[in-house]
Amino acid sequence: MIFDTPAYRTALVAGLALARRAIATVALGGIALAAGAEEQAPAAPPAGRTMADVLAAAAPSDWRPLDAAHTLYLELDSGRVVIELAPRFAPEHATNILRLARQGYYDGLAVVRSQDNFVVQWGDPDGKRPLGEARATLPPEFTVPLTASLPFTRLPDADGYAPEVGFSEGLPVARDPRAGQAWLAHCYAMVGAGRGNEVDSGNGAELYVVIGHAPRQLDRNIALVGRVVQGMERLATLPRGAGPLGFYEQPSQHVPIRRVRVAADVPEAERSRLEVLRTDTATFDALVEVRRNRRDDWYKRPAGYIDLCSVPLPVRAP
Amino acid sequence: MIFDTPAYRTALVAGLALARRAIATVALGGIALAAGAEEQAPAAPPAGRTMADVLAAAAPSDWRPLDAAHTLYLELDSGRVVIELAPRFAPEHATNILRLARQGYYDGLAVVRSQDNFVVQWGDPDGKRPLGEARATLPPEFTVPLTASLPFTRLPDADGYAPEVGFSEGLPVARDPRAGQAWLAHCYAMVGAGRGNEVDSGNGAELYVVIGHAPRQLDRNIALVGRVVQGMERLATLPRGAGPLGFYEQPSQHVPIRRVRVAADVPEAERSRLEVLRTDTATFDALVEVRRNRRDDWYKRPAGYIDLCSVPLPVRAP
Repeated sequence: MIFDTPAYRTALVAGLALARRAIATVALGGIALAAGAEEQAPAAPPAGRTMADVLAAAAPSDWRPLDAAHTLYLELDSGRVVIELAPRFAPEHATNILRLARQGYYDGLAVVRSQDNFVVQWGDPDGKRPLGEARATLPPEFTVPLTASLPFTRLPDADGYAPEVGFSEGLPVARDPRAGQAWLAHCYAMVGAGRGNEVDSGNGAELYVVIGHAPRQLDRNIALVGRVVQGMERLATLPRGAGPLGFYEQPSQHVPIRRVRVAADVPEAERSRLEVLRTDTATFDALVEVRRNRRDDWYKRPAGYIDLCSVPLPVRAP
Repeated sequence: MIFDTPAYRTALVAGLALARRAIATVALGGIALAAGAEEQAPAAPPAGRTMADVLAAAAPSDWRPLDAAHTLYLELDSGRVVIELAPRFAPEHATNILRLARQGYYDGLAVVRSQDNFVVQWGDPDGKRPLGEARATLPPEFTVPLTASLPFTRLPDADGYAPEVGFSEGLPVARDPRAGQAWLAHCYAMVGAGRGNEVDSGNGAELYVVIGHAPRQLDRNIALVGRVVQGMERLATLPRGAGPLGFYEQPSQHVPIRRVRVAADVPEAERSRLEVLRTDTATFDALVEVRRNRRDDWYKRPAGYIDLCSVPLPVRAP
């Protein structure tokens, strides 16, 4: 079992002062995590549990496979990026993006922008490729109605950007009960549809992903359409563009997209078999709590708080 | 004049749906920023000002040069990373790090760790290099006493991690008046001193920088010693390590550090002449406000809030 999640962070932070010793200690921690071993005394109170403990105790039903019908494989020369779309929050965008992918629209296009601590963006560098059956404009799916049927696991802590924050089917969500709205939040690894100044000008032909500190000021200003579940490092490490807003100045700097496929269209043997932790489970609640208050040999002062975009969303390959 | 700051984000986010048009629009915005031009009608209300407007109206005295006596040049094969230390918050660490730099301790060492959405870390891969005149342990400078002499520009908004947040001489700071403490916050580009489980085991020989969403849970658990003022992209784009905690598994993956020098020891002609916006100015207050409530052709719904680590800290080369 491996854990590979953008927000995943281990307890031991910066290693020992001498790297060799740090690596030794760290390797131990890694093994303990993978094996679910307990480093604590058996009598340690529940408050001393770690994320590794919580995940080791998770039931198989606490995990769910990705939704193949709404999962994209973005293939770069460096390998695959797996993106799960969010049709509950941006249904028209999801439909259009699936249509574009199935038409081969993205194949041979490129990453055109990499702005440090902000976003990486991909699309058609020439702006000439026809959209085919896909729509050129879409309704601005920046929020959805807050209804009882919308799954929501609320975080115990408040958030300056919204009255309520939490998770819905593995996605970071904010809500405003007075306004009757809910919306996806711009956390690390979230994917959105670029738009111009007109609110309906985003159509999914140009997509971006958050690669730095959460730019929450974008919330409700643009449509988020999903999140990167695996392969974030392939996007986050791309050279930054030297042009305005991090656009690459030379075509030779563009990072080619080999192709984009819908997971459901890919032969089973070629699929990335990934599972994500369900966020409507007691296991997830426990995970939030052990991350709000870290208690291990390294942490000396638990924060007693966690912000929405610091909550890890564990992923595993069974 | 150029602006190059890790937290700098422009108003136009994701570009137009077609990249070619986006680049054109974007280039326009970039030029307007650099030249301080006004795109708005002269009669536009103050609420419509942008960060570019605020910076264009700044007085020369709103900027300060870096403190050469406490600035490090970390030279990689890819170029220079400029780090300004924070002796007010971590005086013993600053002294030790300056001593290590002047001894040539860091020269020929390497970046040993790159963990996605967390930290990049450098030090001695072999753990064998002697510390010379530098100290092996240091007091845990995780907080400082909250005194009247500590500069502090408080943000108007609350923060879940601390009762008060704001800026002190260009650094993100949290405070707890009841506890009588202040401390640096783990925002993007902040640099800290790695430690083991003992609180006094950090000595500055191994340093890390935040490359992702702010890991504020580290606040008060480890000593922050300064921040990267220029060159963050050289660290943030390093390949992620495949080992536990993002350590590189093979020595061949280590990223060499050519050398680290104190700016004051470097001939004038070789120095990076940078200025940072003072955070105790009306210009900075105005900048915070235009970022709390973005009003331009792109933003449709101002956030009405800004979190500590989303406030830009502008840098310029005069």
